[in-house]
Amino acid sequence: MSRIQFQQSLEELKENLLVMAGLAEQAIQRAIEAYRTHDLSLCELVMRSEMAINRMERDIDQRALDLLAMQQPMAVDLRFILSVIKINADLERIGDSAKSIADRVRFMLQMPPVELPVDVPRMAAMAIDMIRKSLKAFIEGDAELARTVLTLDSAVDAVNRASYASLTKVMEEQGQVAPQALNTLMICRSLERVADHATNIAEDVIFWVQGADVRHYKSVKAAEREAEAAGTKE
Amino acid sequence: MSRIQFQQSLEELKENLLVMAGLAEQAIQRAIEAYRTHDLSLCELVMRSEMAINRMERDIDQRALDLLAMQQPMAVDLRFILSVIKINADLERIGDSAKSIADRVRFMLQMPPVELPVDVPRMAAMAIDMIRKSLKAFIEGDAELARTVLTLDSAVDAVNRASYASLTKVMEEQGQVAPQALNTLMICRSLERVADHATNIAEDVIFWVQGADVRHYKSVKAAEREAEAAGTKE
Repeated sequence: MSRIQFQQSLEELKENLLVMAGLAEQAIQRAIEAYRTHDLSLCELVMRSEMAINRMERDIDQRALDLLAMQQPMAVDLRFILSVIKINADLERIGDSAKSIADRVRFMLQMPPVELPVDVPRMAAMAIDMIRKSLKAFIEGDAELARTVLTLDSAVDAVNRASYASLTKVMEEQGQVAPQALNTLMICRSLERVADHATNIAEDVIFWVQGADVRHYKSVKAAEREAEAAGTKE
Repeated sequence: MSRIQFQQSLEELKENLLVMAGLAEQAIQRAIEAYRTHDLSLCELVMRSEMAINRMERDIDQRALDLLAMQQPMAVDLRFILSVIKINADLERIGDSAKSIADRVRFMLQMPPVELPVDVPRMAAMAIDMIRKSLKAFIEGDAELARTVLTLDSAVDAVNRASYASLTKVMEEQGQVAPQALNTLMICRSLERVADHATNIAEDVIFWVQGADVRHYKSVKAAEREAEAAGTKE
């Protein structure tokens, strides 16, 4: 395989990953639309697309492996291919989250509808924004943009914690709607996981572009703050 | 790097991954022990080990990357190194699950203790058994053993579903213990995720040993069953 062919194969790999990303994002959107509009047929579409996403994950992994096996890629290409493998796994798990949400919506459609004090579509919009930004950062090799995704994650965590608190209160006070509240809480949790996967993707982009490993960035920062706070204790 | 040195480096990589696996397994055990014995200090140990696990994940990833970059590994070694990278990510997420469980236990220690109709330690034992078997399969390159792990996953899923049903019932009937029931339900869910990660590890072992990609094995099987059931419709 010539250098030019190899570069073309890398481009194709990227294209495939973007199709996969499109499917994953769409699956989340459909699952939330099903939640919002109580539409069972959308849940079924999500189930089907999860299977398509799984097939596509295997295909992309195999292509990436073939490229690693056929060539001795230069360091930057090696990092790129490994990033594709990792982003691929995160996208597949976003598909799993979409399926989990669709499952919850299906259960809820069998129960009397209730008003609950959480804004699921807003939380979903935040998570989808993170997916989009992390993929834009991937397409453009933009580590700066990827870094902004890391900061968005804590906002989603905060909304998730608030939802958790308000839904627990509902369960305590109105036992009869506990199943609906619990299913809604699980949907929020799935969205929080989607945001985590978008964060992973952003970290992989930074790893690829800068060669720096920023995973557990926040943990390290937190550790530094703790060490500072501890002062002369150490 | 000579061929012998390369093989030694692969052995070291494997050793490191097994230490990482030991930390992850221990973190789950400690978190469940904290749940069982109401021991806050064990929760703190889990928090600390999560940070150690995160550091170790970065270190193993870097070693794997260096081995890929320095040599042109043969196909079987390439598969091995990629499996290490993937198993590494799953072990790190098992560490995350341990931390989630420890967080839940900390919350619960601030609430009046209640008897709930779920056997968390039993579910944990099932998940830990799956981690151990998947790692034994990795050490011994035993695809057959790895395959048994795939079958164990559905048993954990069944226990999780049963816990979910019984805890929802508790919430409906006794609103005042909804927070405890909800935290316990989240612990069950974390254990179900641990079992999923063990399943991923088993799949990676099979991928490495046999060169076959068995991910979504069950989905494919399910699809086949569905196709059969559909009969002449297709």
